[in-house]
Amino acid sequence: MSVVISAFDEAASREAKERRAEDVELEVLVREIIGRVADKWTMLTLEALEEHGRMRFTRLGEIIGDISQKMLTKTLRQMEADGLVSRTVFPVVPPRVEYELTPLGRSLGAAFCGVWIWAEQHRETIRQARADFSARAD
Amino acid sequence: MSVVISAFDEAASREAKERRAEDVELEVLVREIIGRVADKWTMLTLEALEEHGRMRFTRLGEIIGDISQKMLTKTLRQMEADGLVSRTVFPVVPPRVEYELTPLGRSLGAAFCGVWIWAEQHRETIRQARADFSARAD
Repeated sequence: MSVVISAFDEAASREAKERRAEDVELEVLVREIIGRVADKWTMLTLEALEEHGRMRFTRLGEIIGDISQKMLTKTLRQMEADGLVSRTVFPVVPPRVEYELTPLGRSLGAAFCGVWIWAEQHRETIRQARADFSARAD
Repeated sequence: MSVVISAFDEAASREAKERRAEDVELEVLVREIIGRVADKWTMLTLEALEEHGRMRFTRLGEIIGDISQKMLTKTLRQMEADGLVSRTVFPVVPPRVEYELTPLGRSLGAAFCGVWIWAEQHRETIRQARADFSARAD
């Protein structure tokens, strides 16, 4: 009887260990994804493409505002690699390249919507907190 | 009659202009707040404090993992300035300093929760997108 229990325990413990290893792997991946998407330029690019639809690099830069060409290139490339943005090259001379959100990119936009609402709702509290903080720092 | 309409139009146009100016001001502020909170280290600090409660600088660094002391100092200071984190100094020798989320910080954690869920739900799609992207890049 005790042998049966011990075999059962061993299997249960192995299973628990495997589950923990999976949890750790999942957590590492999720943190890595968060690290990639929780980024100012990714968020502003996402918002611009969400609001204005498919567009060219230059127009996108104009809408985002104060982004450098280098940073926009880097951001779009990362978003393309993660499957958030698709890039269409039109075979004209000179070639026209347009960017738009994929369904995955749109779903991230929807998920991030809560943070925009939060920023809107709490802007006065944040403004006040900043004023208090600089008063304390003086 | 036309004078009345014109006066009405003028007031309406002035009001519309004021509303537009307010919208622009609000948008600038919200974008600035998003730029500040949509940041990898802010998000990971927020998550650590949310999950483990009030703690000391060193412990917080251990939980976040790969953050430098300089970046953790900067992140905590910004979060404190924005009213997301409170800092308690205990009058002991040497002084003990502990950090915890304010109610505002917890509300941001709740708003950001959708993005964590998104990352968990779409991790396979993202993994696949990355594999496809590097295959195309080769």
